[in-house]
Amino acid sequence: MDKSKKAALLFRLLAVAATVSASIVMATSHQTTVVFNVAIEAKYSQTPAFRFFIIANAVASIHGILILFLPPKGLLWRVVVALDLVVVMLLVSSLSAAGAIAQVGKKGNNYAGWMPICDQVKAFCDHVLGALIAGVIGLLIYFGLLLHSIHTVLNPLLLKD
Amino acid sequence: MDKSKKAALLFRLLAVAATVSASIVMATSHQTTVVFNVAIEAKYSQTPAFRFFIIANAVASIHGILILFLPPKGLLWRVVVALDLVVVMLLVSSLSAAGAIAQVGKKGNNYAGWMPICDQVKAFCDHVLGALIAGVIGLLIYFGLLLHSIHTVLNPLLLKD
Repeated sequence: MDKSKKAALLFRLLAVAATVSASIVMATSHQTTVVFNVAIEAKYSQTPAFRFFIIANAVASIHGILILFLPPKGLLWRVVVALDLVVVMLLVSSLSAAGAIAQVGKKGNNYAGWMPICDQVKAFCDHVLGALIAGVIGLLIYFGLLLHSIHTVLNPLLLKD
Repeated sequence: MDKSKKAALLFRLLAVAATVSASIVMATSHQTTVVFNVAIEAKYSQTPAFRFFIIANAVASIHGILILFLPPKGLLWRVVVALDLVVVMLLVSSLSAAGAIAQVGKKGNNYAGWMPICDQVKAFCDHVLGALIAGVIGLLIYFGLLLHSIHTVLNPLLLKD
């Protein structure tokens, strides 16, 4: 196995670690707090965008783990480029949706009358932020792997002949 | 120019039409309404995700228009694949963020205490929905063009030798 393949394998392992962490951290985000004598419970499942985030990262994790068992040579690797593309899309989409909602949770939206909730459920917000950061790391690694595949085959930046 | 190139050109024109429409429809979304004797104004600029949506679609439009002036032959087309990838990412990201916020606008989020606003500003919501639909069409066309480029060069589904 040459150096660039070893590096790709290492990055794939890191990507799996990141997406698995993102799923688990988001899925365990949960806080119960008392505001004006009323118990308020905040958890990921109350927000569709956060559920989508968990599903997308779980799909990316399964994809990443299955690929580790793919024989190093073979035509199937051509399909992997297309699958990587789909996974990157899924991660971008889920991150953007979850990030947009998290931003409203943090800052609120005065015009729409949506109050920020992070002052009340700080631990929950920190947990979600952690999941988003893990998600960004996973996405960046996948994006790098995808660019590398495209570069190797298409040589888009004309760095070699 | 052979048939597949003519088809690609046609799809690129359609993609530009879709992303330009998405930008303009979102940028013109605006409604003033009176609730409990208070004038409420809703417009895209109050929501960061909607501003991002306009920027992303404007970038995609400029990219699409510039490409129409690219000479049909030449090495620059290799870069186009990478640029298309970036544009697709941008469109997926902005659509997901704007879609997530639009969903809260439509359905609200009981747990967070965010009320739906579309009953008060229906025309605004319809306008935003129109922009999102145009955005989805633009994205689908770009995604098709990208898959076509990757398929032509990588032949990932092994449909030919």
